[in-house]
Amino acid sequence: MMGAQEVIELSKRRGIFWPSFEIYGGLSGFYDYGPIGSLIKDNIIAVWKNIFINIEGMAPIDSPNITISNVFEASGHTKVFSDYITYCKNCGEAYRVDELIKKKMPDFEFKSYEDMVKKMRDLDLKCEKCGGELTDPESFNLMFSTKVGPGNGKLSYLRPETAQGIFVNFLNYFRYFRESLPFGVVQVGKGFRNEIAPRQGLIRLREFNMAEAEVFFNPNNIQWPENIKNVMDLEVKLLPNTGGEVILKLRDALKNGIIKQQPIAYFIGLSYLFLKNIGMDGKRIRFRQHHKEELAHYSNDCWDCEINTSYGWIEVIGIADRNQYDLKMHSKYSGEDMEVKVQGEKRIVKKKVYEPKEEYFKNLFGEKWKIAMETMKKMEIEENPVVFGKEIPEEAYSIKEIEITVDYEKVLPWVIEPSFGIDRIFFSLLEHNLYKRKENNYNVLKLKPHIAPFKVAVFPLMVKDNLDSIAHDIYENLKNNGISCYYDDSGSIGKRYARADEIGVPYCITVDYQTLKDKTVTIRERDSTDQERIHIDDILQKIRGMIEECSRLI
Amino acid sequence: MMGAQEVIELSKRRGIFWPSFEIYGGLSGFYDYGPIGSLIKDNIIAVWKNIFINIEGMAPIDSPNITISNVFEASGHTKVFSDYITYCKNCGEAYRVDELIKKKMPDFEFKSYEDMVKKMRDLDLKCEKCGGELTDPESFNLMFSTKVGPGNGKLSYLRPETAQGIFVNFLNYFRYFRESLPFGVVQVGKGFRNEIAPRQGLIRLREFNMAEAEVFFNPNNIQWPENIKNVMDLEVKLLPNTGGEVILKLRDALKNGIIKQQPIAYFIGLSYLFLKNIGMDGKRIRFRQHHKEELAHYSNDCWDCEINTSYGWIEVIGIADRNQYDLKMHSKYSGEDMEVKVQGEKRIVKKKVYEPKEEYFKNLFGEKWKIAMETMKKMEIEENPVVFGKEIPEEAYSIKEIEITVDYEKVLPWVIEPSFGIDRIFFSLLEHNLYKRKENNYNVLKLKPHIAPFKVAVFPLMVKDNLDSIAHDIYENLKNNGISCYYDDSGSIGKRYARADEIGVPYCITVDYQTLKDKTVTIRERDSTDQERIHIDDILQKIRGMIEECSRLI
Repeated sequence: MMGAQEVIELSKRRGIFWPSFEIYGGLSGFYDYGPIGSLIKDNIIAVWKNIFINIEGMAPIDSPNITISNVFEASGHTKVFSDYITYCKNCGEAYRVDELIKKKMPDFEFKSYEDMVKKMRDLDLKCEKCGGELTDPESFNLMFSTKVGPGNGKLSYLRPETAQGIFVNFLNYFRYFRESLPFGVVQVGKGFRNEIAPRQGLIRLREFNMAEAEVFFNPNNIQWPENIKNVMDLEVKLLPNTGGEVILKLRDALKNGIIKQQPIAYFIGLSYLFLKNIGMDGKRIRFRQHHKEELAHYSNDCWDCEINTSYGWIEVIGIADRNQYDLKMHSKYSGEDMEVKVQGEKRIVKKKVYEPKEEYFKNLFGEKWKIAMETMKKMEIEENPVVFGKEIPEEAYSIKEIEITVDYEKVLPWVIEPSFGIDRIFFSLLEHNLYKRKENNYNVLKLKPHIAPFKVAVFPLMVKDNLDSIAHDIYENLKNNGISCYYDDSGSIGKRYARADEIGVPYCITVDYQTLKDKTVTIRERDSTDQERIHIDDILQKIRGMIEECSRLI
Repeated sequence: MMGAQEVIELSKRRGIFWPSFEIYGGLSGFYDYGPIGSLIKDNIIAVWKNIFINIEGMAPIDSPNITISNVFEASGHTKVFSDYITYCKNCGEAYRVDELIKKKMPDFEFKSYEDMVKKMRDLDLKCEKCGGELTDPESFNLMFSTKVGPGNGKLSYLRPETAQGIFVNFLNYFRYFRESLPFGVVQVGKGFRNEIAPRQGLIRLREFNMAEAEVFFNPNNIQWPENIKNVMDLEVKLLPNTGGEVILKLRDALKNGIIKQQPIAYFIGLSYLFLKNIGMDGKRIRFRQHHKEELAHYSNDCWDCEINTSYGWIEVIGIADRNQYDLKMHSKYSGEDMEVKVQGEKRIVKKKVYEPKEEYFKNLFGEKWKIAMETMKKMEIEENPVVFGKEIPEEAYSIKEIEITVDYEKVLPWVIEPSFGIDRIFFSLLEHNLYKRKENNYNVLKLKPHIAPFKVAVFPLMVKDNLDSIAHDIYENLKNNGISCYYDDSGSIGKRYARADEIGVPYCITVDYQTLKDKTVTIRERDSTDQERIHIDDILQKIRGMIEECSRLI
């Protein structure tokens, strides 16, 4: 296995990713995706969107990064989305307290502020730079703030998750889905966290790429349809928070109660399927349930998908039971009622209704007395009932209890959220796919064709005798048919293969002297280095077929 | 032609776009793309990327929204990226001064601060809300600022254009393109402007979607290859800043000197091609050259693509000659030399070189005298030359002028930038494509198949007799083959057609009783409402063919 250093070196040299603003000394926690990295990232996102939007039928949204502060007052982020920070009294360097403690006590878990201060003292923590004294920990909110509009402006934040843009639009999407549950809403976009001291490249960014789905259920029926049939039969490695590690079919894990909710089991399967499909090593994927102390403030159960990399097991996906927390808070803070009527089982319920008295109504309403009585019968019970603008005296009615049949219920939807960290997935994928070819120790990036930045590289054996113009025509035809590819005529064929291998190009096509005779070219596969001759007219079909084949989900 | 109001009403009702954070009273200048809008926007961007990345061979980048302040000090944005603002002394309402003046004097053009103050007095401008006195204009910087990291943090801005993320990486991309010019770098992403009082929906956003290309040329050879052959032969409407309006082939406009630079002509053609391809009305597209006063601080020529909408002619694309401004500024502020060596014509140049004297060198360097002399011959002329750590006295050498042949030149690249405002393009496209069907006055959105949010809607005539399960199989097969589609079994077929028409679905497939006999279905085209029967097995091929056909560029 090759590690982070090799990936980082390759990425810088070949245009995959690099630290942002390097000509100005950089800004830690910010990275650029270069030409190759942007193409790979787009392809990963395309697979994700195909699964969640096209196959699962969830609906996309694109809401702003800048978000009015009210949203995060409701969601709780202004209060509890923070880390504890300590500064060096001598040089001013800032540290995340939990990270400092974990360096000396890897299994430290935060219990209370006092406990944390005590640990700092017990471990005699000092500034790592100058050995200076450290201040007592302070809470540091991780949201970036800004002001919108002129004058003092309206306090706003860069969203720490794309999820809130979905929650505040819950009612719009409920209408879009014709007022039935369950449904999912997805957002692919940026998230922002003002990390105190990020030092791990793409693993801990201050601005990152997320793909999130918020899935809304009837709380009385938390079930997601099995749109992809085999998902629940996938075998995955599970680490429940009761301890131990098991490899189980998801259907069995649900049956055994290791996983509590059907959608969590299904979305674990979907995550696994997604990761395998883009080319992650299945043996280095596991799902670990959060311990109670780890849970975010909005969540009461969460399974992390973790991937083994040279940084150890890192979290790349969280599948959280956010329950009714967010909708409840937004209902409360905005005053919008987010309880919705949904189709339920037919059942008989008791209901109190008015029984207006005819003689009084004739008196009160004259010839309109019948309509007035009917109107009152349909009214909800209230303190001083009013009909057609007239207060109805107590003696004019009684209240009785009747039984009615209803087939709807009013519910506040329950949310399960699969949330994907695209940058970490991207980075892990590079680690899992980069290897050295045994024969010559050259780098090869074994990306699957649908993920590769270019599907094909086209070479003329020599830049003469018309070979280059034939090669150019092949290249033009491929790109005009939407196949991402490039033309390369510089250096030996061996060098051109090596350049293509390193950025994951799965197929190289070479136009040689035999092409002039029989219109065939060689097509060379990256990993096996096998070559075969095919007719020029068959290239497009063959490449399309290979891309389609590896795009298939099961 | 239907106007903005109809588009906005439809968009809100059918999930295309709506104002953000409505449950909290909204925040002007921010909009959400809903389920339908997100899909349409993605499709527009896919066409753009296919043209610029795949066909034109430009390279993508994804750089952060949050940008270190140094970048904008260099680019000039901290100084000059601002509007003049005035506040009501009574109620505090803020206004853009130029907008207030333009309401009374539509052809107002900013000349000087004094001139603006005088205009405000002459026109006797007052607060539009309360009639109060207005303050003198102040400059208001349009960038959103934030702080990165703990403590005071590092001052940063949300980028007002994606372009700067490209310029600061110029050298990385120059290496990626194997040190040759010209090449293009593209970025699709968000841009941010803290507009003073945005009031025009998607037309003036504080957070917006951009697609920009920065194209780097050898300043001695500003030519872009004609990758799409017919682009220069397109006829477009041009409004040069010398006055008048002409419809000309771009090749002729370049020849006549109406357009000064070949890449500007080519990118105007590419823009026109792009807009036509996504379905914009060609008769409502024009290209207007900026007057000198309108030019941004970095630009010395600019052509805007304007589209006619119910707001009038609005700018949706700018094709700017940014010349060497940005690279010059970043070289100066960062200290990185952005002049690069590129292949040039072979030519003979004169050069001064040292001519060391043998007798002195034997003395100075003993047995190393030969290597020392050779070393000195290769050195650049400097004040006190040093060889192997020894200062060489004047009498030990002379300086002579020789002629050498070089085939490279050192240049600071020249930049032409086509910059696309995706939200405005999106909005204009809706306006150009929404119409009322004559027969029944129903809305129809005549989006081309490759732009439509769903390509197909699948209906069973009745939810019984197996029709629904056949329809469901068709739907499953389409979506598993990557065709965006949906299944709808509620309401009459007429209602289902109307629902589909309104969000631009080009084809509806209905499974009826004849399907049970001969496995054919009806396929109904949205605009003609023509129906034909096709075999179930031919559906996928037919739909793919129609999407591919309308994706073709020329």
